[in-house]
Amino acid sequence: MTADILRRGRLNGVQNEQIVAFTSSMEADRWIFDADMLVDKAYVVMLSHQGIISRDDASGILSGLKTIEKDGIGVLDTSYEDVHIAIEARLIELTGENTGGRMHSGRSRNDEVATCIRIALRGELLELAECLVKLRSVFIIKADNHVDTVMPGFTHLQHAQPTTLAHYLLAHACALERDFERLTDAYKRINLCPLGAAAFASTGFPLDRDYVCKLLGFDALLENSMDAVSTRDFIIETLGVCSNLMVDISRFAEETILWSTSEFGFIELADAYSSTSSIMPQKKNPDISELLRAKTGSVHGALMSVLYICKALPYSYNRDLQEVTPHLQKAVGITKSAVSITTDMLSTLTVHKELLHQKSTSGFSTATELADTIVRVTGLPFRLAHHVVGSAVREGNLDFAKIIEIGKKVTGKNLEDIGLRKKDFLEALDPLLNINRRNIKGGPAPGECTRSIIERGNKLSDDQHVIQQRIQALDESKHTLDTIVDTFETHL
Amino acid sequence: MTADILRRGRLNGVQNEQIVAFTSSMEADRWIFDADMLVDKAYVVMLSHQGIISRDDASGILSGLKTIEKDGIGVLDTSYEDVHIAIEARLIELTGENTGGRMHSGRSRNDEVATCIRIALRGELLELAECLVKLRSVFIIKADNHVDTVMPGFTHLQHAQPTTLAHYLLAHACALERDFERLTDAYKRINLCPLGAAAFASTGFPLDRDYVCKLLGFDALLENSMDAVSTRDFIIETLGVCSNLMVDISRFAEETILWSTSEFGFIELADAYSSTSSIMPQKKNPDISELLRAKTGSVHGALMSVLYICKALPYSYNRDLQEVTPHLQKAVGITKSAVSITTDMLSTLTVHKELLHQKSTSGFSTATELADTIVRVTGLPFRLAHHVVGSAVREGNLDFAKIIEIGKKVTGKNLEDIGLRKKDFLEALDPLLNINRRNIKGGPAPGECTRSIIERGNKLSDDQHVIQQRIQALDESKHTLDTIVDTFETHL
Amino acid sequence: MTADILRRGRLNGVQNEQIVAFTSSMEADRWIFDADMLVDKAYVVMLSHQGIISRDDASGILSGLKTIEKDGIGVLDTSYEDVHIAIEARLIELTGENTGGRMHSGRSRNDEVATCIRIALRGELLELAECLVKLRSVFIIKADNHVDTVMPGFTHLQHAQPTTLAHYLLAHACALERDFERLTDAYKRINLCPLGAAAFASTGFPLDRDYVCKLLGFDALLENSMDAVSTRDFIIETLGVCSNLMVDISRFAEETILWSTSEFGFIELADAYSSTSSIMPQKKNPDISELLRAKTGSVHGALMSVLYICKALPYSYNRDLQEVTPHLQKAVGITKSAVSITTDMLSTLTVHKELLHQKSTSGFSTATELADTIVRVTGLPFRLAHHVVGSAVREGNLDFAKIIEIGKKVTGKNLEDIGLRKKDFLEALDPLLNINRRNIKGGPAPGECTRSIIERGNKLSDDQHVIQQRIQALDESKHTLDTIVDTFETHL
Amino acid sequence: MTADILRRGRLNGVQNEQIVAFTSSMEADRWIFDADMLVDKAYVVMLSHQGIISRDDASGILSGLKTIEKDGIGVLDTSYEDVHIAIEARLIELTGENTGGRMHSGRSRNDEVATCIRIALRGELLELAECLVKLRSVFIIKADNHVDTVMPGFTHLQHAQPTTLAHYLLAHACALERDFERLTDAYKRINLCPLGAAAFASTGFPLDRDYVCKLLGFDALLENSMDAVSTRDFIIETLGVCSNLMVDISRFAEETILWSTSEFGFIELADAYSSTSSIMPQKKNPDISELLRAKTGSVHGALMSVLYICKALPYSYNRDLQEVTPHLQKAVGITKSAVSITTDMLSTLTVHKELLHQKSTSGFSTATELADTIVRVTGLPFRLAHHVVGSAVREGNLDFAKIIEIGKKVTGKNLEDIGLRKKDFLEALDPLLNINRRNIKGGPAPGECTRSIIERGNKLSDDQHVIQQRIQALDESKHTLDTIVDTFETHL
Repeated sequence: MTADILRRGRLNGVQNEQIVAFTSSMEADRWIFDADMLVDKAYVVMLSHQGIISRDDASGILSGLKTIEKDGIGVLDTSYEDVHIAIEARLIELTGENTGGRMHSGRSRNDEVATCIRIALRGELLELAECLVKLRSVFIIKADNHVDTVMPGFTHLQHAQPTTLAHYLLAHACALERDFERLTDAYKRINLCPLGAAAFASTGFPLDRDYVCKLLGFDALLENSMDAVSTRDFIIETLGVCSNLMVDISRFAEETILWSTSEFGFIELADAYSSTSSIMPQKKNPDISELLRAKTGSVHGALMSVLYICKALPYSYNRDLQEVTPHLQKAVGITKSAVSITTDMLSTLTVHKELLHQKSTSGFSTATELADTIVRVTGLPFRLAHHVVGSAVREGNLDFAKIIEIGKKVTGKNLEDIGLRKKDFLEALDPLLNINRRNIKGGPAPGECTRSIIERGNKLSDDQHVIQQRIQALDESKHTLDTIVDTFETHL
Repeated sequence: MTADILRRGRLNGVQNEQIVAFTSSMEADRWIFDADMLVDKAYVVMLSHQGIISRDDASGILSGLKTIEKDGIGVLDTSYEDVHIAIEARLIELTGENTGGRMHSGRSRNDEVATCIRIALRGELLELAECLVKLRSVFIIKADNHVDTVMPGFTHLQHAQPTTLAHYLLAHACALERDFERLTDAYKRINLCPLGAAAFASTGFPLDRDYVCKLLGFDALLENSMDAVSTRDFIIETLGVCSNLMVDISRFAEETILWSTSEFGFIELADAYSSTSSIMPQKKNPDISELLRAKTGSVHGALMSVLYICKALPYSYNRDLQEVTPHLQKAVGITKSAVSITTDMLSTLTVHKELLHQKSTSGFSTATELADTIVRVTGLPFRLAHHVVGSAVREGNLDFAKIIEIGKKVTGKNLEDIGLRKKDFLEALDPLLNINRRNIKGGPAPGECTRSIIERGNKLSDDQHVIQQRIQALDESKHTLDTIVDTFETHL
Repeated sequence: MTADILRRGRLNGVQNEQIVAFTSSMEADRWIFDADMLVDKAYVVMLSHQGIISRDDASGILSGLKTIEKDGIGVLDTSYEDVHIAIEARLIELTGENTGGRMHSGRSRNDEVATCIRIALRGELLELAECLVKLRSVFIIKADNHVDTVMPGFTHLQHAQPTTLAHYLLAHACALERDFERLTDAYKRINLCPLGAAAFASTGFPLDRDYVCKLLGFDALLENSMDAVSTRDFIIETLGVCSNLMVDISRFAEETILWSTSEFGFIELADAYSSTSSIMPQKKNPDISELLRAKTGSVHGALMSVLYICKALPYSYNRDLQEVTPHLQKAVGITKSAVSITTDMLSTLTVHKELLHQKSTSGFSTATELADTIVRVTGLPFRLAHHVVGSAVREGNLDFAKIIEIGKKVTGKNLEDIGLRKKDFLEALDPLLNINRRNIKGGPAPGECTRSIIERGNKLSDDQHVIQQRIQALDESKHTLDTIVDTFETHL
Repeated sequence: MTADILRRGRLNGVQNEQIVAFTSSMEADRWIFDADMLVDKAYVVMLSHQGIISRDDASGILSGLKTIEKDGIGVLDTSYEDVHIAIEARLIELTGENTGGRMHSGRSRNDEVATCIRIALRGELLELAECLVKLRSVFIIKADNHVDTVMPGFTHLQHAQPTTLAHYLLAHACALERDFERLTDAYKRINLCPLGAAAFASTGFPLDRDYVCKLLGFDALLENSMDAVSTRDFIIETLGVCSNLMVDISRFAEETILWSTSEFGFIELADAYSSTSSIMPQKKNPDISELLRAKTGSVHGALMSVLYICKALPYSYNRDLQEVTPHLQKAVGITKSAVSITTDMLSTLTVHKELLHQKSTSGFSTATELADTIVRVTGLPFRLAHHVVGSAVREGNLDFAKIIEIGKKVTGKNLEDIGLRKKDFLEALDPLLNINRRNIKGGPAPGECTRSIIERGNKLSDDQHVIQQRIQALDESKHTLDTIVDTFETHL
């Protein structure tokens, strides 16, 4: 560029390519280009509404902005340090400095970029919320299909007690419910309007901050102008929400990896969600699950980077904040695609029900119910019953005779004499009876799972409704703004 | 111990000291001892209420628990791997296995510890919320004292525009308001009851989860029993909230460090919040601020550790989760004391008002207002006015003649001819007039600051009220539980 | 304390308990107490040697220091902010200010603490190196025991190709060799002496830095005095080394968890390295492995915290650095015990050789060798052979007829006609023949493994020797210093 | 693509665009394209040399590879999941499957990609080393220019003692020396050859691993084939080295930010290394320095991500490792440009020598020398002298009378009587005399700085030489390989 509209006044010294590459955010700004067009339009409408610029100037600027929007970010001069100034430069090129040079009155890139990020982010988060709704619905539907599918439950990756696949799937659905709640809570603090804060000190121009806030579909102002340009707390919060969500995704991914080993063999992933080897022709690998697991680390690292960058920054705006945005963009993008991919992977995987059932009694996993049964029928305290059963397992078998033998050794009593019948013993070892008995709230018994499935479904509908309302509100505000902008055009 | 009540059944092999040291959580469990006593009592009351254990056994156990509570964690056998089993062992010692051995019926340490952590944490967070309320109030009071204190405002640590100290202090108050909101939102997901989930699969004993939930002052159940013992998302969320809050603390701390240098000299910290040197007798160092800044890194590192630990853990409980709690405890403790120390440091620091005022015009920081004035009075577009003023600064002075001279060069016009009077020029350079003009919402003008101070104060009262209600609710549930427990004693 | 020897001059304002708790490093300083005694003694010897203090004063101080050393850190006044000043205060108490008040001449706590940390750390790292040598030796010995133990090798946790257990164990041994190398390289940059740097600006007293450096067993000076007190790069490097090492430990721990599931069943951990459940009497859980995995996250978090703290600190010393040391201490402690625990866990676990052998052909894991065989005997290109074998696996069996059938479909040729005999086919599927063929450098063939075991053992001896030399050098320098100190005593 | 050469055998199920986007590394693989061409060529030469493929086939393949290299990565089919298989597919397209299908004999993408990353990385690190050499040289040259430039030295950002700018610049030069050493140490563990490890189990083909290792310019084999494809420890180590280096860069960047404030005013950055404001025309902001500071956080976050990804991965290769490489590439790229930008920024900044000199006595920064002087001339112990001077500062002045007055109060003696002359007093307060006295090793005295500058310069020459040798060795091995490849061409 021959005369940088920004630097021409204060600074000599053309920056070499290396410096431009080091400082430019043009590449990252693709993410906020649409938001920036929105902000520019709303801002100009407000400037005109307040009489800060004339209606004619506003019409000229708005018309120029439409051209820029239509042409897209691709034609902007990439030698500028960011998209905001590139747009302004192009606008001046299109409309002359006497018109285009008025757009930035009372505004700074500091409040502008903060506004753009919040607009781009709220859009992404609503999309993420929609993805999450879908993922939850698949977990719930799958749970409904597997209310009676008995399987071994694990602690420490060791067989613990039999449970149902529905119970397991609902555990994930419940965790994702809270992820959704956190997303919703974060949204409240994202959809706030910094515009009008200018560089940090607001401005002497009589801006109407509430008006432009409304035009842009924000719920409220981010009031204090110094705070408005300095804070990136909403980004840290968003990345925290994504990090938590990705932990949940990674835990499910880990289980799909384990469960599709030939050792476990609980499930088989669809071919589309598997890869093979360039050398080993027999391989069917859970690469997608592995990438879900790995990308969790990338999201966590993004959170870390942003905390590093924000820590101990003096007020108000510092250029460090520019380095924050690409981390946000990347992490939110990964999270969205991870949720979506997981949804499809879950939908398409095959469950080996018979094997699950068969394995549900291995590893002595009904031992707890046996101890409980001993407590119930003999009145022995739990800790003693635990001792008896544990000793039997150590000796390698859980038959009735062994229990009686060890019961005598440990308690001094013949357990049959105090009420333990072979029938009780056998019932305790039956996984299905065992599960049916665990029908308290949140338990794996089919009836309880069905109740929970209905509750999860209802909650899902409510959440879906909230998201739809938010999307609609944004659509409406955008439509209103477009209509107002059109009135300027007529004016020309 | 001669016969480990837990391991005696299933396992041979005494663990050597190194293994015990590596695996034990006894030290960390000090943090949850009080919570554990509460959980044990409520659980036993419920077991009796449901007829799972007899009222006599319940009385015996509750009496034993009272002794243990009175004696404190100090007398427990530290060779046990955690506080839960050490309490149970001590209880059996006190009441005999036939009584004490019944307490753990239908319960696992997995749901027990999850419940204890949530109880300990909610208490800590309510304390943190109270500290935060105090810190916000000091920022607001200080702001009220400095509505007319003019000071240079900064971007990039360079003088940008004059502002008021109130405006700056309110920026921090606003950021802390959002930290408080996040804390409040997190609390909703913390005060949920996992008890009754047992190892992960709930239990065949007919527990009343809702009853014990209420006895413990929880707002609702953490329903699904597998989810209930597996998730630590509330810890990640809490550490996210603390990390964000500590970023805000660290930014203020950084400014106190900068502002108490001899170069800035804006403030002087109280001697109590300073240290000196063992070698340099003249030194007065802002050590507390530096530690606030450094400890921010420790809180962030704690969040990182927990994310590392939780990522890709298969369901349900794994021992990895034990390593999570000390990070939580440490980070919340640091955050609480950091907020409290900051409160006192802010209360006791001295502001050098005259110097602030005097510096508020240095660094050409009124140049923006000058450019705005040119726009207003001459009708030139902002970008041109920016060019004119920027060029004058580059040449090193901002006198009226220079502006006219450069105005001609840049615009081809004599600015005086198109409306710029010397009076306009001088007014633009006066920091107070300059600030008074910036009276839109969120701006630094004294009137606007006063309005914001009142609003912040009202919000603070509301928030304080919410916290008080929560504290009271917990107190009441604790009182109710104690009363019920007492009825058992009478029974004996 | 009635008159803080440090603050009494410059500062008013007694610090309340909260401030003292927030700023004190007394607890963390236990780690450096021994090092501090060493530093004090060497420094006083040097001061006397240079005539900066008299031999009489030196004798008095050294005698006081001996008393302090004997009494231990426990008796020091904990109201002081750190151990250095508490020692000096106690020394003055013991010897009078006219003697004890001379110890700190030309010294600051800044260079003192940096020196102490390096001394404490080098000791820890030599211990860690010894632990690592032991762990490597157990991997090598176990490998030697399992040169002929055939097992399935995995990629993506799917059966890939048969290998030997020796090959697997050597993989870990090789990784740990590099961890050891990194430790050794880091040591070079740790064992450097900052003493004499004073606050950062050195001193006008004619110290002999080289002499005190030698007395303390350092390899060289950390020369520039500003750098010497400001840098904590050696801590970041050490934590990087520990983080890498813990990744390796966590990978092995993960495998012990997987391999001791009932699904894999490859190994059984010793009872001492397992835990059971408080509710499920049958459980034998790999808790130690899980804690190894989790504590990896704590070490990584420590590295993170230190990076957070050090980033963007202006020179020279800032109090932030105090917060660094506990992270180092904790992380190195965890790493040392993790390596040691892993050593014992590995020594005591049982390998199920027959099962490993039996599983080594499941999952079509010999398919690669079959494809290679086709290439070798028929001259088909590898990519086509890969296609043939992959298609056969998809259809679910790898018998000779199927290969011929698919070979025809894919290549248009009868593979028997171009050289594939049934004998070739069967040999390819035999895991042992299969492994024996893979005898190139680094391969799993028993002969190659034996060669590698010998090489690993030789490298281990060399490394052990290096460590012993370093330990001996430190012992000698300590002995020399003690001898010199004793000459002062005689003098009294 | 119509028939995926990799998936066609084993898997059905075309992957949709979302899956391809989620799993593909094609974009990231640009970084290793050149390395991959090198690896392919060397591998084919070795295959032919060992008689595994015929010389004719080798010639055909090498010729195809040359075409691919010339065409560049841009023309490859991006629907393949990575560059390796895209190259192979293109090769088969160019040469037919009967020739091109032989290249991958005995090789897997697992060993291939590990080899490529090491080749690409060693190249980047040699460039980084060259950049670092330049940065160190500028620090040394600047130090040489400022041996006599007196300035205030800081601890806790408070004036501490006068020093020289040379002393300060040498502190950075020394820190960077160690960064260079770490880089050099890391290089030893990077330049090792995994090729021949195949999928992880090596291969039955009689590869000559040592030969291909030498052809590729590696120093040695990464021997064990399972270790060779599983480990990414060299990446963690490299990111640790970069993180440490970036901490050093960020500390210098922080100081350029502080020192170019109007409050400090020690330096002025060149216009090319500054930015201005879109709203505030007077601004000259240290944006480059701020970005250096911020990008440090991005490098640290990359290290974190990689640790997250690698932790607890079971052996051998898992797809998670694919997600590691982009973090490496990004972080090394940032580090290289940060070092380079810092070099130029340092070269072009202006030092305000007079102001530095003038400020060197403010803040009572000569007080330490005064206390030392009192010790020297009166024989009082240091701790008492410290008390005297500290009390004088608290009362706000350091004139001779005040010292005598307080000396009496504190010590009970008239300091003049025991040897303190006004001349001693005045000399202690003179910054230059003060500095000259501090001439022990590593001190700020001009003579000592000059000695250190020479030493730093010598070390720099040595280091430069080492780097040049390494670069030359790689060039030579590349040249040799090209020559050998050419002999195949002749053969055609």
